[in-house]
Amino acid sequence: MKKITLLGASGSIGTQAVELIEEFDETFELVAITANKSIETIEKILHHHDVQVVVMAKEYEQRIYDVAPNATFYALEDDGLLKAIDATADATVFNALVGSVGLEATLHAIKNNQDVLLANKESLVVGGPLIKEALLNSNAQLIPVDSEHAALRECLKGKKHSDIEKLVITASGGSFRDVSKENLKNVSKEEALKHPNWSMGAKITIDSATMMNKVFEVIEAHYLFDVSYDKIEAILHKESIVHGIVHFKDGNVLAHIGPSDMRIPILSAMKGDTSLRYHSVFDLVTQGSLHFEPIDPHRFSLFDLGIAVAKEKGMHVVTLNAANEIAVQRFLKGDIGFVDIETLIKKCLDYFENHIPLTLPNILSHDKLVRRYATKLKI
Amino acid sequence: MKKITLLGASGSIGTQAVELIEEFDETFELVAITANKSIETIEKILHHHDVQVVVMAKEYEQRIYDVAPNATFYALEDDGLLKAIDATADATVFNALVGSVGLEATLHAIKNNQDVLLANKESLVVGGPLIKEALLNSNAQLIPVDSEHAALRECLKGKKHSDIEKLVITASGGSFRDVSKENLKNVSKEEALKHPNWSMGAKITIDSATMMNKVFEVIEAHYLFDVSYDKIEAILHKESIVHGIVHFKDGNVLAHIGPSDMRIPILSAMKGDTSLRYHSVFDLVTQGSLHFEPIDPHRFSLFDLGIAVAKEKGMHVVTLNAANEIAVQRFLKGDIGFVDIETLIKKCLDYFENHIPLTLPNILSHDKLVRRYATKLKI
Repeated sequence: MKKITLLGASGSIGTQAVELIEEFDETFELVAITANKSIETIEKILHHHDVQVVVMAKEYEQRIYDVAPNATFYALEDDGLLKAIDATADATVFNALVGSVGLEATLHAIKNNQDVLLANKESLVVGGPLIKEALLNSNAQLIPVDSEHAALRECLKGKKHSDIEKLVITASGGSFRDVSKENLKNVSKEEALKHPNWSMGAKITIDSATMMNKVFEVIEAHYLFDVSYDKIEAILHKESIVHGIVHFKDGNVLAHIGPSDMRIPILSAMKGDTSLRYHSVFDLVTQGSLHFEPIDPHRFSLFDLGIAVAKEKGMHVVTLNAANEIAVQRFLKGDIGFVDIETLIKKCLDYFENHIPLTLPNILSHDKLVRRYATKLKI
Repeated sequence: MKKITLLGASGSIGTQAVELIEEFDETFELVAITANKSIETIEKILHHHDVQVVVMAKEYEQRIYDVAPNATFYALEDDGLLKAIDATADATVFNALVGSVGLEATLHAIKNNQDVLLANKESLVVGGPLIKEALLNSNAQLIPVDSEHAALRECLKGKKHSDIEKLVITASGGSFRDVSKENLKNVSKEEALKHPNWSMGAKITIDSATMMNKVFEVIEAHYLFDVSYDKIEAILHKESIVHGIVHFKDGNVLAHIGPSDMRIPILSAMKGDTSLRYHSVFDLVTQGSLHFEPIDPHRFSLFDLGIAVAKEKGMHVVTLNAANEIAVQRFLKGDIGFVDIETLIKKCLDYFENHIPLTLPNILSHDKLVRRYATKLKI
């Protein structure tokens, strides 16, 4: 049995992971779950799983003990995530947290020599160099759960790193792919949350519409596969059928294709080399046709901005991520418009310094500073 | 240096292999070449390569010695192919012969423990069971050069055979893809030889137009990858950009994509695990769109017929191949029409017995019988 400590069990990726653990209950065992305030979802999971550790906001302690009297409860506020990782040291850590809060947990698990299944893209976005350094001193493996990176990983299996010519990931274009730049001013939160292909959480759905998600994925790919930015491309592919492509130096090109079903990368990451049968109905004939376009830098101006920040290296990438998180929150609250997301990010990048050493304390405190600034900023 | 004995050096695949051996002359060495009557092409090769063995029709012996006095000449008529293989026992055998004549050479090389790079699809079509048996008792590897099978092989690298769900190969539809069944009666040899995507020899270009080529490729895939016929599909894909697709049981699907450039599979087969850089400009954005359709069984009636013969097993597959070779020859000579290719094949299948033990002597004598019958058959 492969033990799974699931950080962020109540989110979109977390609940799909739980369903797969239930479907393949002879292979996986859920030993710890964490959430913030989604008590109903957590209670439901506890009815079906005899977990050792539960982490939630402190206020839910009694409710957790009512449902799972044998489990250990740690409060989220008291380093609960790190305590859950330590308490299940023989488990694989599935990091399905949303936002830069995931970085510390990822680093902690790697330092514990625990394999990390990484759905939390912000870990690598804000702490890529720290994670790479931690991996050098650890036996832990870092396995991507994102569909694009899981796709690249499948294409790279059995291949030599030195044979890579370039990596390509695809972008659907998000909810406003066919809306002109001018008309973006008037789009609503409800329209933004309708992703054409994928069913995902609110944050990533907005990040898809702004193309910021693709910036994060390029950064992730850079650190996960140790490939320089000039050898990573993103292209527009509205059907989201081709997820990742690897061009090899010998002229061979492999593409990972399939339905927009996050369960496939989730299961692939969890199972490792174990052979499991997943029921998936997919064929290209039913799909009919696939289309590919360049990402228009005028229409998706945040993409070029984000990639420039990534290439620059330094603390700006933390600014970018934190400003984006707050901007998306403010958009979802109806506080700012869709195009203001970019304005807010740009203002933060102008305001904050880039040349600050990337240590964990610096990253965490800078992240807080940017959030505070971005929250108050008048647009 | 990897030594290459190239059978069929003057054909389309053979000449491209020679060009690659010249481009990567620090990796490959051409030690033997064979052809039938293309003396000019062979003389040109001999000006650039110091080969040990040359095989051609007996009449060219003196001309070969004039150009390559240090080479050993064997006549094609006197088991020249087998002698060339024996004389270069430390070489990899690149079988780029056209037609069932390639089977004996493939078997001979495998029995000699020499790796075989197989572009001669008829070897597996008519002698699949014999080749599989020979491989069981040999250290030789059989490596496909066909673009579809090279594609499947790249997708399968680093994967477990038991994880294969199904294999899919693509068909361009050939020169008459957009011609209705009714209008096929009037097409000319010149029209048939214009393949929309690939630059190939005459025989395979006609086989593409009739879809017989795809029948052969399904049979090849069956033997090369040890996958049952019900798990091998062929689909229509007019752009010839996706060459082969592997669906895995865990829901992952890998596709091999790229330009219609036979040099990529040729180089991949020749180089093995050696890292080489091949200059290839390809990207999906330039391509723009890809289309996939089922193969219409009414329009491409030879496809279903051929697959039925393959599934049946037995000597009929030899009948199918020999009748097809003669039918294509007769069409290229202007002796029969394009739709008569199917008529002639059907008549041969009706005439000859299927239940004959598949031994090499039986296959070779049956092949001759069918050719004689098909050559004389009035249409």
